[in-house]
Amino acid sequence: MSVIKAAIVGGTGYTGVELLRLLAGHSGVEVSAITSRAEAGTAVAELFPSLRGHYDLKFTAPDVDALAACDVVFFATPHGVAQAQVPALIARGVRVIDLSADFRIQDIATWEDWYGQPHGCPELVPQAVYGLPEVNRDQIAGAQLIACPGCYPTSVQLGLLPLLETGLVESTGIIANAASGASGAGRQGKTDLLFAENNDTFRAYAAGGHRHLPEIEQGLGRAAGGPVELTFVPHLLPMVRGIHATLYAKLKDSAAAASAQEALQQLFEQRYAAEPFVDVMPAGSHPQTRSVKGTNMCRLSVMRPQGRDTVVVLSAIDNLAKGASAQAIQNMNIMFGLNENQGLESPALLP
Amino acid sequence: MSVIKAAIVGGTGYTGVELLRLLAGHSGVEVSAITSRAEAGTAVAELFPSLRGHYDLKFTAPDVDALAACDVVFFATPHGVAQAQVPALIARGVRVIDLSADFRIQDIATWEDWYGQPHGCPELVPQAVYGLPEVNRDQIAGAQLIACPGCYPTSVQLGLLPLLETGLVESTGIIANAASGASGAGRQGKTDLLFAENNDTFRAYAAGGHRHLPEIEQGLGRAAGGPVELTFVPHLLPMVRGIHATLYAKLKDSAAAASAQEALQQLFEQRYAAEPFVDVMPAGSHPQTRSVKGTNMCRLSVMRPQGRDTVVVLSAIDNLAKGASAQAIQNMNIMFGLNENQGLESPALLP
Amino acid sequence: MSVIKAAIVGGTGYTGVELLRLLAGHSGVEVSAITSRAEAGTAVAELFPSLRGHYDLKFTAPDVDALAACDVVFFATPHGVAQAQVPALIARGVRVIDLSADFRIQDIATWEDWYGQPHGCPELVPQAVYGLPEVNRDQIAGAQLIACPGCYPTSVQLGLLPLLETGLVESTGIIANAASGASGAGRQGKTDLLFAENNDTFRAYAAGGHRHLPEIEQGLGRAAGGPVELTFVPHLLPMVRGIHATLYAKLKDSAAAASAQEALQQLFEQRYAAEPFVDVMPAGSHPQTRSVKGTNMCRLSVMRPQGRDTVVVLSAIDNLAKGASAQAIQNMNIMFGLNENQGLESPALLP
Amino acid sequence: MSVIKAAIVGGTGYTGVELLRLLAGHSGVEVSAITSRAEAGTAVAELFPSLRGHYDLKFTAPDVDALAACDVVFFATPHGVAQAQVPALIARGVRVIDLSADFRIQDIATWEDWYGQPHGCPELVPQAVYGLPEVNRDQIAGAQLIACPGCYPTSVQLGLLPLLETGLVESTGIIANAASGASGAGRQGKTDLLFAENNDTFRAYAAGGHRHLPEIEQGLGRAAGGPVELTFVPHLLPMVRGIHATLYAKLKDSAAAASAQEALQQLFEQRYAAEPFVDVMPAGSHPQTRSVKGTNMCRLSVMRPQGRDTVVVLSAIDNLAKGASAQAIQNMNIMFGLNENQGLESPALLP
Repeated sequence: MSVIKAAIVGGTGYTGVELLRLLAGHSGVEVSAITSRAEAGTAVAELFPSLRGHYDLKFTAPDVDALAACDVVFFATPHGVAQAQVPALIARGVRVIDLSADFRIQDIATWEDWYGQPHGCPELVPQAVYGLPEVNRDQIAGAQLIACPGCYPTSVQLGLLPLLETGLVESTGIIANAASGASGAGRQGKTDLLFAENNDTFRAYAAGGHRHLPEIEQGLGRAAGGPVELTFVPHLLPMVRGIHATLYAKLKDSAAAASAQEALQQLFEQRYAAEPFVDVMPAGSHPQTRSVKGTNMCRLSVMRPQGRDTVVVLSAIDNLAKGASAQAIQNMNIMFGLNENQGLESPALLP
Repeated sequence: MSVIKAAIVGGTGYTGVELLRLLAGHSGVEVSAITSRAEAGTAVAELFPSLRGHYDLKFTAPDVDALAACDVVFFATPHGVAQAQVPALIARGVRVIDLSADFRIQDIATWEDWYGQPHGCPELVPQAVYGLPEVNRDQIAGAQLIACPGCYPTSVQLGLLPLLETGLVESTGIIANAASGASGAGRQGKTDLLFAENNDTFRAYAAGGHRHLPEIEQGLGRAAGGPVELTFVPHLLPMVRGIHATLYAKLKDSAAAASAQEALQQLFEQRYAAEPFVDVMPAGSHPQTRSVKGTNMCRLSVMRPQGRDTVVVLSAIDNLAKGASAQAIQNMNIMFGLNENQGLESPALLP
Repeated sequence: MSVIKAAIVGGTGYTGVELLRLLAGHSGVEVSAITSRAEAGTAVAELFPSLRGHYDLKFTAPDVDALAACDVVFFATPHGVAQAQVPALIARGVRVIDLSADFRIQDIATWEDWYGQPHGCPELVPQAVYGLPEVNRDQIAGAQLIACPGCYPTSVQLGLLPLLETGLVESTGIIANAASGASGAGRQGKTDLLFAENNDTFRAYAAGGHRHLPEIEQGLGRAAGGPVELTFVPHLLPMVRGIHATLYAKLKDSAAAASAQEALQQLFEQRYAAEPFVDVMPAGSHPQTRSVKGTNMCRLSVMRPQGRDTVVVLSAIDNLAKGASAQAIQNMNIMFGLNENQGLESPALLP
Repeated sequence: MSVIKAAIVGGTGYTGVELLRLLAGHSGVEVSAITSRAEAGTAVAELFPSLRGHYDLKFTAPDVDALAACDVVFFATPHGVAQAQVPALIARGVRVIDLSADFRIQDIATWEDWYGQPHGCPELVPQAVYGLPEVNRDQIAGAQLIACPGCYPTSVQLGLLPLLETGLVESTGIIANAASGASGAGRQGKTDLLFAENNDTFRAYAAGGHRHLPEIEQGLGRAAGGPVELTFVPHLLPMVRGIHATLYAKLKDSAAAASAQEALQQLFEQRYAAEPFVDVMPAGSHPQTRSVKGTNMCRLSVMRPQGRDTVVVLSAIDNLAKGASAQAIQNMNIMFGLNENQGLESPALLP
């Protein structure tokens, strides 16, 4: 097929530059526009020297006609922006892949409660497809508007889906203890994101309630066929990329006997046997975030310590890749009937 | 009183050099001997340039007479060493503070099971006092042999004691998700401890079972007045010092109503009101490991997210300080009737 | 003597909190005021949790009467601030120790040229004493206004003084290649200081000309008894604290024969024999920044590679300590006739 | 052409795994063997989880027949190994690309002096081509044995070649101040390479003389058409990948007038105009190591601070890529008449 024309709205953030990095190696796509009000006129390669020689593109102010001339528009923007700009594009038949939180939550009241503002475009929410290919591949193929999952929700859902889909574990009292690299906080000049504030230290944040909680519970609720109650505590790591989720769920008494380590291993391997970007590691493994750095891979490990009733799942992704931009490209590949792996096949940088 | 003569056995590791750093500022103690078979004859300040100008001491081969001439001997050795050398010192009336795991577990079979070797000195285990001052201050004052708590066990027990002592939470299904800086793995030339293997990456390890589990369950069991079942998953952080434990326990139905955020906050503040080295932070705080770096402080925060039944406690210590050498000095201060804070009052280095 | 009453102007930056950390352990000083317009009313321990339990102090808006009631006022402010506030304090007999660049350069035109603004208080510049005790100890003892050296200038001058004072090396073509931890850039929310922008990367900056160049050349010129021409290239390290300067100077032909490694080593050892905070390491050593972390120490090493005409000096300090706040306290100790080491004796944290 | 069969000798080190990472994306090459005595029988993907799904290969013990069956053999081994194994392969017509130091130095006595052992295969040294394409592209195309440049020598030579080839600068008194990420020290379990020994600290090493010095002086001497005298001081950075060299050379009096900033900029741009992997950045830029991470690119910047006689060049590469494995593949592409860029086109991971 002819090359897909893509645009990126909000290209100065980390998910924007990650889209550019990955699309530079994707032969089926050409980035024809990238917008930024603040940097309009600046060359992409000036702001991001790593892209020197890969893009001649300059940032431009957002222009709906220019965006509408593309086959697909990626929104790599803070929440609230896509809600305002997407309707005009949808109306003109453009496909939209939103990396922000604007269309992830189906219940408008819940979204407004957690994001503290009225939803700017509730009418499009019902048709937005949640872009987790391991769950919604078919709907993604036919979608015009994709709501890409958040970084934490991707790592947590992929780790818990096999247990909840099969009803092996209780749907309450689930624990998601997750830690993210600092790039997850975005490219904004805040004192508490300084190098000198985050190197050689570790802390939890938003332990009382993080915006990704309702998104996770919505996704897991669908898998469980009923409400799921999760305690989610995110932490900030002294590193740039990577999310590691350590997940704890209680086996139902009825399932305990049948869920030996071997059975759990088999359950996970079968659930993801056909998935190109979920890697169930051998029993006893501990996935490292660096093993997925820059890639669309999620590596999982499942165990049942001391043979007790608590199942532990370890889940590692790159927050900017499978947690954002690479998964967005996986969605694009599916939407346009390309090879789902295209542009996403490079192994991680190690060491 | 006259100055205490102290010796350190196994002084080339990180807990050894941390003892030296802290004792350099302790006017009541003089380090008169430090042993190392491998480095015998080497000046301490040659191996650790940070101590240039603070110590003229040279490492010496272990010699029981030299050690017996001291008032107190610290063992900063791998497990197994103290078991062999402590009996002779105890017999000669020397006080011993063991930073290793040799005397922490009262049940010999459990120790042998987890450490994979016969216990070298079971007869002394009953008289060894577990050196957690927040629980055993009085026994420490009268003890001749102290088993210093492990780093993870210190952070986990201090975080859970108030909940288990009062029976507010279930004693099973407790989760201790902890992460440690790389210094916790010791100063040994192993490939998987290299800088290039641990920077900019994060992973769990020993998720199937870590040696600190039985120590934690022993301590919490005493607090709960019955067996406690914990799932403990340690992680390795890309930083040098610090342990952060994120703890999850389920409120008993009977306790749920009475355990609002305010009540939990008050419970923790009262439990530790008299403790010089446990700091209960204001409700909603997230303790950072850097805020305790190099100090004997443990900072705690307690919350009840979404008002659900899972209580979350955040606990931060320095694994080499409150998790090892500084707590050992706190024990020494108590044993010798000194001011419990002596030599332990410097604030953390920040940034 | 009675306790010295000290105030800190601009206490929310890294040199301010470092002054607080060090003065917490200085029995001869009490911090009675700390100012910050932005944080007026906030408790110091709320902004810096590492100081919980050490200070009850709140930040206050600057008030000249409150400051004038102190024995000494430290300015831990950006350049330009001290110029405006110092005159009133000097007039009222208060001693002032300025950690900023305002009074370091004796030539007003040079200062205005490099700092791009008119000097706010040229009349006080002549009486300001440059606070490098290794050069100006006597004048410091009698001074009312101290201009504390910059971080880079401290590390570079201490490394080159012995060579220039003795005229062993050419006064032109000197190279100062230096690298600093990110805390040197201050505690301000700028995008290019983010953790995600500075971890796992290294770069030079201001290679075309850095404001510390004229300060360094002024100091070295005094030592050489004539103009010195230096090329100074600073670099930004992916770490929080520490400056390492690698210095290169060409031996005069007349001096080459007499300057064997042994002679250079002896020269440095003799020059600093009486200095409590300059440590000339054994020949062949390589000082590490971590060996001086949090301390007032400067560690030096001198060598003559391949016996060629280029002498290499390695110099390591902590940019926030000997490079700023600890040196300021050393100056204060000298001004008030205290033991020069008081409050500055703790060894570095290692690891 | 048909796919090239490649083998890697010594595949468990960082240059070995980097070859595997890069060749996984090179459609013209198939890795048919990878050797390791220690790991014989272990799956590559077990030792390096980042390669799961990319290689089924197992490590095998070195076997000359298996190696001789390949078109090209890469040696990613410590010095001394290739000297012993290469002759048999050369005799059988196999092309060899040696990433070690064995064949870099043409003067055998110099090699033996710096490496402290007799050279195992002096007879092949004359025919070994030094694999710096920017200098020896034509000879590389016709070579059977390539000696890949060291990491430091690559960054230093590319930065100084334009100045020495044109005779603009003095050939003595040149300074190469370089810093490397810890991966440059290799994947060996040494205490001084531990994370806890190298994080948050910085130091010089081998300042008295590093093995890369003679290699650099050999290469620069060829460019200058006569002996070059360099002072080279390497430093160890608290990061994994990247080398940054800051180079200082003195303009000849005759050249000073003609070498304004613009002229130097133009000189560098013209010298490398046709080079796919040398990027001369705009005047005033400061190349960051992260901008070349994982790539074969060398980014340069040249300036003349204060218009004085010292020219400063900043040079950034990835020590494992352009400094080793990627440059080896660039050499292979040239030797086999492939597109020189093949497999080397991905932009760096940023952030």
